[in-house]
Amino acid sequence: MVEKILIKVNIVNITSNYFGDIIMKKGTLYGTHRVIDPKGSLPQPALKISNDMELYDNEILIDVDYLNIDSASFTQLKQEAQGDLEKVKNKIIEIVNQRGKMQNPVTGSGGMLIGRVEEIGSKISSNIDLKVGDRIATLVSLSLTPLNIKKIIKIDSDIDRVEIDGKAILFESGIYAKLPEDMEDTLALAALDVAGAPAQVKKLVNLGNSVLILGATGKSGLMCSCMAKQMVGSKGIVIGQARNENRGQFLKNTGFCDKVIIADVQNPVNILEEALKANGGKEVDISINCLSIPNVEMSCILPVKDGGTVYFFSMATSFTKAALGAEGVGKDVTMIIGNGYTKNHAQITLDLLRESKKLREIFNEKYA
Amino acid sequence: MVEKILIKVNIVNITSNYFGDIIMKKGTLYGTHRVIDPKGSLPQPALKISNDMELYDNEILIDVDYLNIDSASFTQLKQEAQGDLEKVKNKIIEIVNQRGKMQNPVTGSGGMLIGRVEEIGSKISSNIDLKVGDRIATLVSLSLTPLNIKKIIKIDSDIDRVEIDGKAILFESGIYAKLPEDMEDTLALAALDVAGAPAQVKKLVNLGNSVLILGATGKSGLMCSCMAKQMVGSKGIVIGQARNENRGQFLKNTGFCDKVIIADVQNPVNILEEALKANGGKEVDISINCLSIPNVEMSCILPVKDGGTVYFFSMATSFTKAALGAEGVGKDVTMIIGNGYTKNHAQITLDLLRESKKLREIFNEKYA
Repeated sequence: MVEKILIKVNIVNITSNYFGDIIMKKGTLYGTHRVIDPKGSLPQPALKISNDMELYDNEILIDVDYLNIDSASFTQLKQEAQGDLEKVKNKIIEIVNQRGKMQNPVTGSGGMLIGRVEEIGSKISSNIDLKVGDRIATLVSLSLTPLNIKKIIKIDSDIDRVEIDGKAILFESGIYAKLPEDMEDTLALAALDVAGAPAQVKKLVNLGNSVLILGATGKSGLMCSCMAKQMVGSKGIVIGQARNENRGQFLKNTGFCDKVIIADVQNPVNILEEALKANGGKEVDISINCLSIPNVEMSCILPVKDGGTVYFFSMATSFTKAALGAEGVGKDVTMIIGNGYTKNHAQITLDLLRESKKLREIFNEKYA
Repeated sequence: MVEKILIKVNIVNITSNYFGDIIMKKGTLYGTHRVIDPKGSLPQPALKISNDMELYDNEILIDVDYLNIDSASFTQLKQEAQGDLEKVKNKIIEIVNQRGKMQNPVTGSGGMLIGRVEEIGSKISSNIDLKVGDRIATLVSLSLTPLNIKKIIKIDSDIDRVEIDGKAILFESGIYAKLPEDMEDTLALAALDVAGAPAQVKKLVNLGNSVLILGATGKSGLMCSCMAKQMVGSKGIVIGQARNENRGQFLKNTGFCDKVIIADVQNPVNILEEALKANGGKEVDISINCLSIPNVEMSCILPVKDGGTVYFFSMATSFTKAALGAEGVGKDVTMIIGNGYTKNHAQITLDLLRESKKLREIFNEKYA
């Protein structure tokens, strides 16, 4: 009976053309063809998507090695299972069976995956920079990635990594990075996790700019500082903010910033004063929020000159606090919502690690 | 006793120079010199600011005619008072006495005020486009404006307007508009309330652009459509979205949009498809969110081409939904947080009302 049903499905899904070649089903750019519930939704907000592993013509089939579960999600799963990794395994299987994707129902978040390209849809195979066998990391969230798990092999609880036997689908609009051969997977992943940040800085910052990086000692802050320093040149200035002397000294030692300020991001006037001092009394052209805490919008806005730009990478940013805050102080600044994706962001980020020995050293030590 | 104290305060606060002229106390740009609690805070988030009406050298003293209480705040006040306007009066007095500003403790919001310039601080009087006697509307929120109410004369409950005998202070960084003589106060106020929107559109939109306005039939949507139409010229296109045929017909009659689409903003794929149809199969250069409802981030992002811009005016925008949403579909778009202030925004907005008879007619009918 099962076989019969499978055959029927195949007849519906795959047809052949005049020459007998197999013709794949046509998929939509954003993967809405796989959304089961609710209809009309995009795959990410959807409650259930199809994880049938038969390929549409614009999809990429991946033989998955590892899932890198989002940190918030993994913490929640461990807590719910009271640390019992067998229970975590069962829960992951349960979620994927229910939703067709690994999206934690409590946190809503997903993660990334690493695997090998197994098949490429006929419509996209000729104009894509990938071939069967390439190892890639997906840079779209697992929360929208069709996933089918045969078996969970191992959970590495320290680095939120789940080794599986399974397959996944990448949509035509999905983004990915080929894993480089000149660095460890763990190092590449740590960097790719914040790939949007340095790539956006590269686009945003120009020669001669003054740039203030808030939270410069963190993972994305270090990358942004290092990239900003490359972009501003000798006539520009990169000012990095740290929250205490210890971290300030660490930041000075990196050489990524021209000036380091120790100031309290919860006190916008303190940040303004220190930034002015560091920048010869002038407001800066650009500020970049790499902090992971809320209520720092005004600290990002106040030090920027009229006509300047505030870039918010932090997911803890409040839209209304930024909008009303800038209006409240009459600041004519352009405020940008950090976009984790921009063209060539993975390449730009991995290249930065290759160019800066110091950055690579720090990432190897702290994050890989 | 009271008199003695007053005299002492005066001695501390006002000194005279060599020639016997009165020298004012020096204020800070953002008004932090008036923050009482908590120290180091800016006036808006502060719990209490000084509403002592003695002027610092960079402040403007206003003899207030009306407060225009923010709609969310006024609704809350009326509900709490169960519709008893005497109780609302008392509550307003109580709030201002406690906080030194009219900031609703429940909603956190304020409003605007109209009044006459009574005095201008010595430091700014020579380089400001204002003179004593000018009638102005403040365009910074009442939630950060030092206010002193002698008496509430009348509450006009229908338009959230409170007539008072009182004074207020505008900081050096505060923004304002001179009330025009060629239109009613109510009309000018209705327009100034959304002054940021058309002014930002003027800055953002270029000749030949394709622009999608979501929520084009609302107050800011109409203004943005009208301005966008001026900016794109004959080779550009303005596409206005309406939620039903009725509103679509109304929008068509305005002539502000080249194309009108009827589509559901809660369904991003529907919006994308209709926008593509209207724009000859191409994604648009710019989308502008003038909606007042949440969960429409993807409807704003999907129709925009790579390299394009999404402008979020709506205060119901979620930062994380926008950031993760764009990444999820691999969209390389610049997403901007709507800033209620930009240079000359009041002038630009009032001029738009003067230039477009149709817009002025609609505003007079619907909002004034």
